[in-house]
Amino acid sequence: MERSLDWDSGCIVAVDQTALPSRTTILRIDTVGDLVAAIRRLAIRGAPAIGLAGALGVALSAHRHTVAGRTDHAAVRADADLLAAARPTASNLEWGVRRALARLSEGPDAVLAEARLMLEEDERTNRAAAARAAELIRQLCRRRPLRILTHCNTGRLATAAWGTALGAVADLAAAGEVDHVLVTETRPLLQGARLTAWELAEAGIPHRLCVDSAAPAAISRGLVDCVLVGADRIAMNGDTANKIGTYGLAVAAARHRVPFVVVAPESTLDPSTASGDQIVIEERLAAEVLGYAGLRTAPAGTAVYNPAFDVTPAELVTAIATERRLLRDFGALSGKATA
Amino acid sequence: MERSLDWDSGCIVAVDQTALPSRTTILRIDTVGDLVAAIRRLAIRGAPAIGLAGALGVALSAHRHTVAGRTDHAAVRADADLLAAARPTASNLEWGVRRALARLSEGPDAVLAEARLMLEEDERTNRAAAARAAELIRQLCRRRPLRILTHCNTGRLATAAWGTALGAVADLAAAGEVDHVLVTETRPLLQGARLTAWELAEAGIPHRLCVDSAAPAAISRGLVDCVLVGADRIAMNGDTANKIGTYGLAVAAARHRVPFVVVAPESTLDPSTASGDQIVIEERLAAEVLGYAGLRTAPAGTAVYNPAFDVTPAELVTAIATERRLLRDFGALSGKATA
Repeated sequence: MERSLDWDSGCIVAVDQTALPSRTTILRIDTVGDLVAAIRRLAIRGAPAIGLAGALGVALSAHRHTVAGRTDHAAVRADADLLAAARPTASNLEWGVRRALARLSEGPDAVLAEARLMLEEDERTNRAAAARAAELIRQLCRRRPLRILTHCNTGRLATAAWGTALGAVADLAAAGEVDHVLVTETRPLLQGARLTAWELAEAGIPHRLCVDSAAPAAISRGLVDCVLVGADRIAMNGDTANKIGTYGLAVAAARHRVPFVVVAPESTLDPSTASGDQIVIEERLAAEVLGYAGLRTAPAGTAVYNPAFDVTPAELVTAIATERRLLRDFGALSGKATA
Repeated sequence: MERSLDWDSGCIVAVDQTALPSRTTILRIDTVGDLVAAIRRLAIRGAPAIGLAGALGVALSAHRHTVAGRTDHAAVRADADLLAAARPTASNLEWGVRRALARLSEGPDAVLAEARLMLEEDERTNRAAAARAAELIRQLCRRRPLRILTHCNTGRLATAAWGTALGAVADLAAAGEVDHVLVTETRPLLQGARLTAWELAEAGIPHRLCVDSAAPAAISRGLVDCVLVGADRIAMNGDTANKIGTYGLAVAAARHRVPFVVVAPESTLDPSTASGDQIVIEERLAAEVLGYAGLRTAPAGTAVYNPAFDVTPAELVTAIATERRLLRDFGALSGKATA
């Protein structure tokens, strides 16, 4: 399976990201209910990936609700609403659902064609955004080879192919410019430890894993040349929602004048959100924090604060690289690009 | 067992902090080798506690190396060196070892008497430092009841009794001034999740547990009125080494003008360390980061960066409360107290 997410013979196929790195399990999903569940439990995760999954889910629904050439539009729209609401923070999910749904009047095959086009675009989009970010890092950072800090997983698993921030890392590594990548483990669900470390090992890119709280100290000790992260929703003023912990990295990076670069497709920019304080932050189950994989780590019944994302204000973001532009002056998000 | 660490019939007895919260296991330690191992594997941990353990270890050694009224001073000094070197960062360990060793010429009973005096002093010391910190928090924070963020474990388990930062929390809670405590889980060894949550539950103080990286976001969202932490070594300019992750909390607290208060006994101040860059930071085993309790969370063979502590510069510390004084002007550490 070349893509981490794809369409195959009437089903959505996806790498089960909860099983990695110990097992590579391929999910075959043929109902919208199962897809919503897979997105909710993070078997399919990553803002670009869930956007694509949403589009594929609409195609699935359109096919399921077409009998004798007649499509039950209301049923498909209800499924689309369910899909768009599966997780609240990443803007790509609603974007993917709406874009596929826009073709519904042309029939289920048109919806599927749109979803497949989006899958194809994904790699091109990511490669373009990643290359733009890599070029910016080359300009901003003097030291070679680079020591790059990244958080969570922004590789091919988080997209369909190539990745965003991790795509930029791959670009720089391919040019021999990476000393190593410092990977935060990303509690509670350990996307850094489980997925990013696995992708970097597969790609042969040197890396070191650390607990999330060690990253600010690494920055303060001069061990990090730049920070590259993805995004789940970017407001029109440049405020960026991303995996919980991103904000703390941005604050430390700003204090030590380490470039902090966001790599994301344009579909992550949300024209309907003026600033970060309007972004809905998903709070997830206490069980994620009280243990890991069934192993309890805290006393039973402990109350938990478990936001899945945080918001980094634009003033702490050096730049946002998308497939179309490099945003440094965030006034640009309201219209005019800067590069 | 009233104290988490004590002397009983020729043995050191200690709560095994690696077994909590699932089991309360009491260790009986009767050799210096076993004590060093217990300190290294964090069965006995917390800067004040390992200082006391060091003193008790010298008493143990002095008794073991006394035959027919004659003590082998060289053997005891060699044990003392082993004990002092068990972990490098906390200054209390060497302090405890040296203070007990200073009585060696008076015989093993004098060494033990000194170690026991230190155990008795510990609770008074902590209560005084904690009360001073609590009073400062009352002055600095307007909101009632308080939402207090703490990191790692600074309660009675980290000392012999009462605790430092968590002692201040208990003081404030006893006065009805605490809404809840936000407890960071403190990866990799989860002292917050396993020990602090357990101590707070035992004391009936409301608390919520979060992953370490959620704390800066909580600060930025206005959910934290003050940060209270302990310390492992405080340099003469006020730079403070404490559990990895403390630095990131301090940076976020400073950005949002949230008081960041260190509570520690005077034995944590190190007159021989001028500034934080001279503090040796212990790096611990990769296995701590690659999993938890035998459960692997990252691909086998992943390289790791695992510093056990970080250094918070004095400029980010609102105040340090000890049993003798409140340090806010850190020039005071070189001699003159400020309060």
